Amino acid sequence: MKKYKRNQRIGALMKIFAEKPNYVFSYNYFSEIFNAAKSTISEDVSIVRELVSELNYGRIETISGAAGGAVFIPVMNMDEKNKILMELCQLFSHKNRILPGGFIYLTDIFNNPGIVTNIASVISSEFSDTKIDCIITVETKGIPVAILTGQKLNVPVAVIRRNNKVTEGATVSINYVSGSSNNIQTMSLSRRSLKENSRVLIIDDFMKGGGTCKGMADMMREFNAEVVGTAVVIETKVPEKKLVDNYLSLLVMDGINDKEGLIEIKPNNKLLK
Amino acid sequence: MKKYKRNQRIGALMKIFAEKPNYVFSYNYFSEIFNAAKSTISEDVSIVRELVSELNYGRIETISGAAGGAVFIPVMNMDEKNKILMELCQLFSHKNRILPGGFIYLTDIFNNPGIVTNIASVISSEFSDTKIDCIITVETKGIPVAILTGQKLNVPVAVIRRNNKVTEGATVSINYVSGSSNNIQTMSLSRRSLKENSRVLIIDDFMKGGGTCKGMADMMREFNAEVVGTAVVIETKVPEKKLVDNYLSLLVMDGINDKEGLIEIKPNNKLLK
Repeated sequence: MKKYKRNQRIGALMKIFAEKPNYVFSYNYFSEIFNAAKSTISEDVSIVRELVSELNYGRIETISGAAGGAVFIPVMNMDEKNKILMELCQLFSHKNRILPGGFIYLTDIFNNPGIVTNIASVISSEFSDTKIDCIITVETKGIPVAILTGQKLNVPVAVIRRNNKVTEGATVSINYVSGSSNNIQTMSLSRRSLKENSRVLIIDDFMKGGGTCKGMADMMREFNAEVVGTAVVIETKVPEKKLVDNYLSLLVMDGINDKEGLIEIKPNNKLLK
Repeated sequence: MKKYKRNQRIGALMKIFAEKPNYVFSYNYFSEIFNAAKSTISEDVSIVRELVSELNYGRIETISGAAGGAVFIPVMNMDEKNKILMELCQLFSHKNRILPGGFIYLTDIFNNPGIVTNIASVISSEFSDTKIDCIITVETKGIPVAILTGQKLNVPVAVIRRNNKVTEGATVSINYVSGSSNNIQTMSLSRRSLKENSRVLIIDDFMKGGGTCKGMADMMREFNAEVVGTAVVIETKVPEKKLVDNYLSLLVMDGINDKEGLIEIKPNNKLLK
């Protein structure tokens, strides 16, 4: 069987950790892959732990004992977070995004895996110390953010639908009032998609009045789930009072100046403290 | 400024490559991060290239010259592909997935980032030599597969909607005939979401008659786009003749035995040659 050099094992370990953050790998698993003794693997993991810390990538936690293993918990440093948020502001504020009626075209951004991976990295960093069982979102534009945050946090996602589908099995449906337009809308979630008593993180792309996030929180009560966090990519500054409390937004939109074609958007200061 | 040891740089390089596959990083970028001479970086990349090759992770390609750089192209080896496909078959075939009317509940699988990352790795490996500008899918269940494949291939995604939204700007809509049910349905794609003359990869979760994929291909003509590939996660064995040719499926479903509660599903043999 093949043997590998130390720096090959270090590189491979870092690849494995980076591709599956927040996943606990056993030392046995690494021993088999690298055809190396557990003591060797243990030294390798120490080196990786040091490099992750020195390069500000987050932290490696080790679990000792017979079922011992190691997990990579990425946590973004302030400089990187700041850089990503400023890049997002630039992207979102471009004047040719303004559509008739004061709407903003954001679909390309929310469907760009590279950009959304950055968004997901910021959100997952903020919740890296929170125990989360499942991420909840509502179709359609929030799905990529939810999926890529789920990838970073190593948790499944449940997608609330706007209408019932035969392929969802038994569903729970609720009506909710859209915060901004006062319309009554319906959302449905498959019974099978969320275990009772889960700790959930609610994710959405955009928050104006907060009605959709409140609707999702109400839905969670039907599943006896506990909402341990709510994250949105953009919130509007107005109305200042939303229908939900304790949410995290990445960016705050001051307003659209339709005449001059300006979108005023800036990072949420709370994230940069 | 901080200096790093070789095995720290190797680990960090592998992390950077793994988190952004198919992205060309310049040597300058690495030089700045690691505070090291280009010649040193060049040696580091050689070591990484060798380890990627020895561990069967795919390949590192280097681009020489002033604008020199390096890119990690993950290509799955046959053993790993086989393992993932067998795991997927197990997951998909579980008898408690059968819903009334012979439908199958698959939503939890398609919203699980860990599982979909594996699916995306198989698809992106198959298309690692194809030049692709954009991935196309239709809402809702195929979105995570499209986004995570886009992440692996480093290309944007365009999501076709079932109905028009004000936030999409000008859209192109077409009617298409669902292959299995013969219903006429509508799909819309935002004009802004796809550049003219793009080379696109069509992705969907499930193919029975092939009507949806054919609809997407028809839509592509409206954008002067060239369909360079079509990938679906599951196809049904019947009907054998689909409305599209030249598609790749990961799994083939033989049928559902509703009485005995069995779902017969197996890997597409073409992938394992």
